[in-house]
Amino acid sequence: MNNSFPQHAALESLDVKDGCLQIGGMSLTRLVQRVGITPFYAYDRKKISERVALLRRYMPPEIQLYYAMKANPMPAVVQHLAKLVDGMDVASMGEMKVALDTPITSHRISFSGPGKRLEELRSAVASDVVINVESASEMERVVQCGEELGMLPRVSIRVNPDFELQSSGMKMGGGAKPFGIDAEQVPSLLQRISTLGLNFVGLHVFSGSQNLNTSAICEAQEKTIRLATKIAHQAGVAIPWLNIGGGLGVPYFPGQHPLDLAAVGERLHGLVYDIKQIFPNIEIAMELGRYIVAEAGIYVCRVVERKTSRGQIFLVTDGGMHHHLAASGNLGQVIRKNFPVLIGNKIHQNADDVVTIVGPLCTPLDILAEQIPVTRASIGDLVVVLQSGAYGLTASPVAFLNHPEPIEVLV
Amino acid sequence: MNNSFPQHAALESLDVKDGCLQIGGMSLTRLVQRVGITPFYAYDRKKISERVALLRRYMPPEIQLYYAMKANPMPAVVQHLAKLVDGMDVASMGEMKVALDTPITSHRISFSGPGKRLEELRSAVASDVVINVESASEMERVVQCGEELGMLPRVSIRVNPDFELQSSGMKMGGGAKPFGIDAEQVPSLLQRISTLGLNFVGLHVFSGSQNLNTSAICEAQEKTIRLATKIAHQAGVAIPWLNIGGGLGVPYFPGQHPLDLAAVGERLHGLVYDIKQIFPNIEIAMELGRYIVAEAGIYVCRVVERKTSRGQIFLVTDGGMHHHLAASGNLGQVIRKNFPVLIGNKIHQNADDVVTIVGPLCTPLDILAEQIPVTRASIGDLVVVLQSGAYGLTASPVAFLNHPEPIEVLV
Repeated sequence: MNNSFPQHAALESLDVKDGCLQIGGMSLTRLVQRVGITPFYAYDRKKISERVALLRRYMPPEIQLYYAMKANPMPAVVQHLAKLVDGMDVASMGEMKVALDTPITSHRISFSGPGKRLEELRSAVASDVVINVESASEMERVVQCGEELGMLPRVSIRVNPDFELQSSGMKMGGGAKPFGIDAEQVPSLLQRISTLGLNFVGLHVFSGSQNLNTSAICEAQEKTIRLATKIAHQAGVAIPWLNIGGGLGVPYFPGQHPLDLAAVGERLHGLVYDIKQIFPNIEIAMELGRYIVAEAGIYVCRVVERKTSRGQIFLVTDGGMHHHLAASGNLGQVIRKNFPVLIGNKIHQNADDVVTIVGPLCTPLDILAEQIPVTRASIGDLVVVLQSGAYGLTASPVAFLNHPEPIEVLV
Repeated sequence: MNNSFPQHAALESLDVKDGCLQIGGMSLTRLVQRVGITPFYAYDRKKISERVALLRRYMPPEIQLYYAMKANPMPAVVQHLAKLVDGMDVASMGEMKVALDTPITSHRISFSGPGKRLEELRSAVASDVVINVESASEMERVVQCGEELGMLPRVSIRVNPDFELQSSGMKMGGGAKPFGIDAEQVPSLLQRISTLGLNFVGLHVFSGSQNLNTSAICEAQEKTIRLATKIAHQAGVAIPWLNIGGGLGVPYFPGQHPLDLAAVGERLHGLVYDIKQIFPNIEIAMELGRYIVAEAGIYVCRVVERKTSRGQIFLVTDGGMHHHLAASGNLGQVIRKNFPVLIGNKIHQNADDVVTIVGPLCTPLDILAEQIPVTRASIGDLVVVLQSGAYGLTASPVAFLNHPEPIEVLV
């Protein structure tokens, strides 16, 4: 293919035939007819499977893979992943229902979140899932729910570590945080836990996400395992299970490169070996959302207007920030950068038309790509935003300006 | 009241009784029981009416007031405003349906948007609303829809002005923009328009929004009227109607002060007088969204957790960025600032508890207020985000992490 975005790492792996993007074994133009409407999100089931297989190849065989549903909660995606991963992490009662509808056993569903409502805790106890307890007072509420239901709630303790995942897109731990219980308070809590009528299953440590720096990830994993060991020793209790979080990033923006997964895996083999010397029976889980699904998804919209204003070309599409907030630069980015974007039905031609691609909303925030070179596109052509399988539709203000809701398909 | 936020302008006008915020003639604690669930948005019908009355008082009597529905499309709010304003601006077929359900005549409904789909244009022509045409090719599509339907489409031309609204929150005009037709291309287009089978109703010029600078607004209005006059002279056609846009801002952040509406009105009286000397029959409209509804709305959520992490206090609530993206700092803001936030059921006590208020989502983006002084709050207390009547619920990623949808009430 004519690689018009040398600076966007992800385009290398595109499947293109006769100038048309292929997804799920069919051409994009055929998929558009199958879906029947634009805009839509399409997730490639084979790519999701391949990504899990890649993780299995490089990660130590003892590692359990958990899928963090928040990245992409489409029920078909979740059902597909339920056959591939070892567990699921959910972040609300709504997500928990989706997970419980899969064949995954409730003991392999963990429920995280700094502000679980009482009815959520009650539902989680009744569901017999693992509750990642995030404060001492939440632990008391879980005990109370267990007593009401006559059940022994399964809990893990979410630890707010005393370190951060360096160079991370989002820091979830270290310093003062609403997430989890400060590491230094955990040992005394663990000593009380056995007296409380709780089934303690382990610890959950999540230090950050969207990281492309191999050594930062390895360092955080090492610190996580060291922290768990220290907590276990200080509390004098066994840690049956340790969720070391995820943090593996994907390249979105020019200049970013894919993570060296082999290097992460190699280092983790050593870490798992070490901790198994101390706690032979410990189970270790990694929890990944974005890394599993982001690169398997695309967002597709159609050009409805091509216009020139004072020398600049604009493609206006039927999709935009209301469907894909992250691509518009409004989901946590400080400086807006372009996701990889192309004209999905015209990849063979010269990509030398520098355009700004916007959505149909009456706001200057509604940008899909700014001043990027693409194949010359006309009304009816298909704009594709790559790397769109995670934090896409559900992370977007779909009702903004009351346009039709986009469709999601798993192909 | 104990004004705990001297830097937040809006708190001055709060109605507080026995330490409890009053809205719609009732206490917040009663309203919570009436709604039956948190979180919710509440819009005060009296405050909306008062804001329109204020505009009527200060603006010249000839000015038509249009409501830009995108700011708050709740049908009850739209129905309420339909009795108070002269027209509505809609930004999608979905919004158009809501406007057509009100008693407002279709001729007073204008439809804007840089990427109207063909079916939207067809529906707009069939509805006999005014289409704000944003490109020459869109004009051709409107002509085509008119021919198909055997109707004479009402169109106004949206002009991309050759100036910007200075110090504006969002620039909608000036330079290269996807919105409207560049001013310099409009005269020749107007000369063609009468030959095309279109009912030309006027011009629409929108230079920016969310502006608190009186002189910048007055300057933009003056330039808008001068531009319209110039276009009319160059084209040699009459401009029956001129929508000069809005741009009036509301104070959200510390240090911002309310707009001097009297000064804007005074200047506009002169401008209207001047243009009437040239075009005695011209009708002039202002189009306002945020300015009419923003200060009439609050977002209410409940504290579900109070925790201390490494010396900082966090209140975790059942609401957050998924309901109120703007308050989280992720809707166009470069640097996150706090909306005015208070503990709505505890306004009488000392507001000296410095806290960070977050939502229930597992992401560090889910912040409602950072390090603000509030009355000491416990689990069950009510967090209120003020200035939340515009660009609230519909501008938020409601499905993110699959929590229950909040309710909206007009009280």
